[in-house]
Amino acid sequence: MAHHTHHEDTERRILDSARRLFAEKGYEKTSIQDILNDLGLSKGGLYHHFKSKEAILDQLNADEWAVTSRLLDELIERDDMSALEKLRALVISAVDAPDHLDLVRSQLALLKDPAFFTANMRFWSTRLPESFRSLIDMGVQDGSIPTAYPEEAAQLLSLLGNYWLMPCFYPADRTDMERRIRCLATMLDAIGVPVFDETLILRAVKGLTALMPEGEAASA
Amino acid sequence: MAHHTHHEDTERRILDSARRLFAEKGYEKTSIQDILNDLGLSKGGLYHHFKSKEAILDQLNADEWAVTSRLLDELIERDDMSALEKLRALVISAVDAPDHLDLVRSQLALLKDPAFFTANMRFWSTRLPESFRSLIDMGVQDGSIPTAYPEEAAQLLSLLGNYWLMPCFYPADRTDMERRIRCLATMLDAIGVPVFDETLILRAVKGLTALMPEGEAASA
Repeated sequence: MAHHTHHEDTERRILDSARRLFAEKGYEKTSIQDILNDLGLSKGGLYHHFKSKEAILDQLNADEWAVTSRLLDELIERDDMSALEKLRALVISAVDAPDHLDLVRSQLALLKDPAFFTANMRFWSTRLPESFRSLIDMGVQDGSIPTAYPEEAAQLLSLLGNYWLMPCFYPADRTDMERRIRCLATMLDAIGVPVFDETLILRAVKGLTALMPEGEAASA
Repeated sequence: MAHHTHHEDTERRILDSARRLFAEKGYEKTSIQDILNDLGLSKGGLYHHFKSKEAILDQLNADEWAVTSRLLDELIERDDMSALEKLRALVISAVDAPDHLDLVRSQLALLKDPAFFTANMRFWSTRLPESFRSLIDMGVQDGSIPTAYPEEAAQLLSLLGNYWLMPCFYPADRTDMERRIRCLATMLDAIGVPVFDETLILRAVKGLTALMPEGEAASA
């Protein structure tokens, strides 16, 4: 029991250190040795938990997805919000949470790796739309998301939100980013998914601008 | 000079044979030996022109892109069509041309390869939007494409047309495909890019349905 707790504790410390270092130095520039130095841990102590740097990032991603998944479950249970308000809360958690944005930033370099990129695109076209879909279906029921395209909206929110809006794939300064998000808002409104109201537009611009390479965000 | 002509002729024969075999048997199942047998050519005779099967496909892609590029240049020159009509003609050439669809079909298997997939996504986010952009700018000028989002429309036509509409990435039967295209039409209308009229919607449904795995298209 004590051993079990210690095991989980070490794993948690490795993940916390890695998340911080990936965000500070970037994924590519962080070495396993940096994490060992940070924690005063031996190589064997780390490899007992994670086979590679990629395995650490995979676990951070899984944890992140677990957070979204839990938030989604909590939102679905609430009876004081419409489905549209719940969908907005989910999008806000993605564009507005510093922890989440730190993790996204730490992934940007890794997305240049074809295998990692392809795996992400697959996730964005399958599991992520499923979670949007459940909220959109609730919105069709309660009338807050009056769309004839629930599946298409779920796919597009996932694909466009995670890929098209990202300044690493489609370079943008702040003005470009605001126009891009207003364009998406207009299109989603047209298919009966009015998730981007003025408040969410401005929060999304702010959050996504923070993901730009330093120079571009500053010059914008 | 005679040698030069012979060289080009052999290259053309290899490409024609490969295009046909890739379309008939699929890219993965076509071997270099199949192409040699088809042409009665020696291994050395082929490797003199192409280093690998991938190199043959790259050249087919480049040729295909050259066709689109030439069509775009021709369309830009014409003064008997609005820019919107020109954009429609460009989309029709992509969803309606048997040669083009054969090539796309031959690529579907290869898109499972992360390196090839990543290269395609990069092309769809950079060079392809540029060609759409020139026509959309003309449409803003002549009033036929009254959009405030010319760059965004160019990126979305490219990304959604080549990725989201493809049944290999987002599985769909004929009904799904028609709903997906109508959804895209509604969104593009909303941002002032009314490229999908009823005629184009039906042609796109037909063309993209032909890209489905046999069983799904038949059962739909």
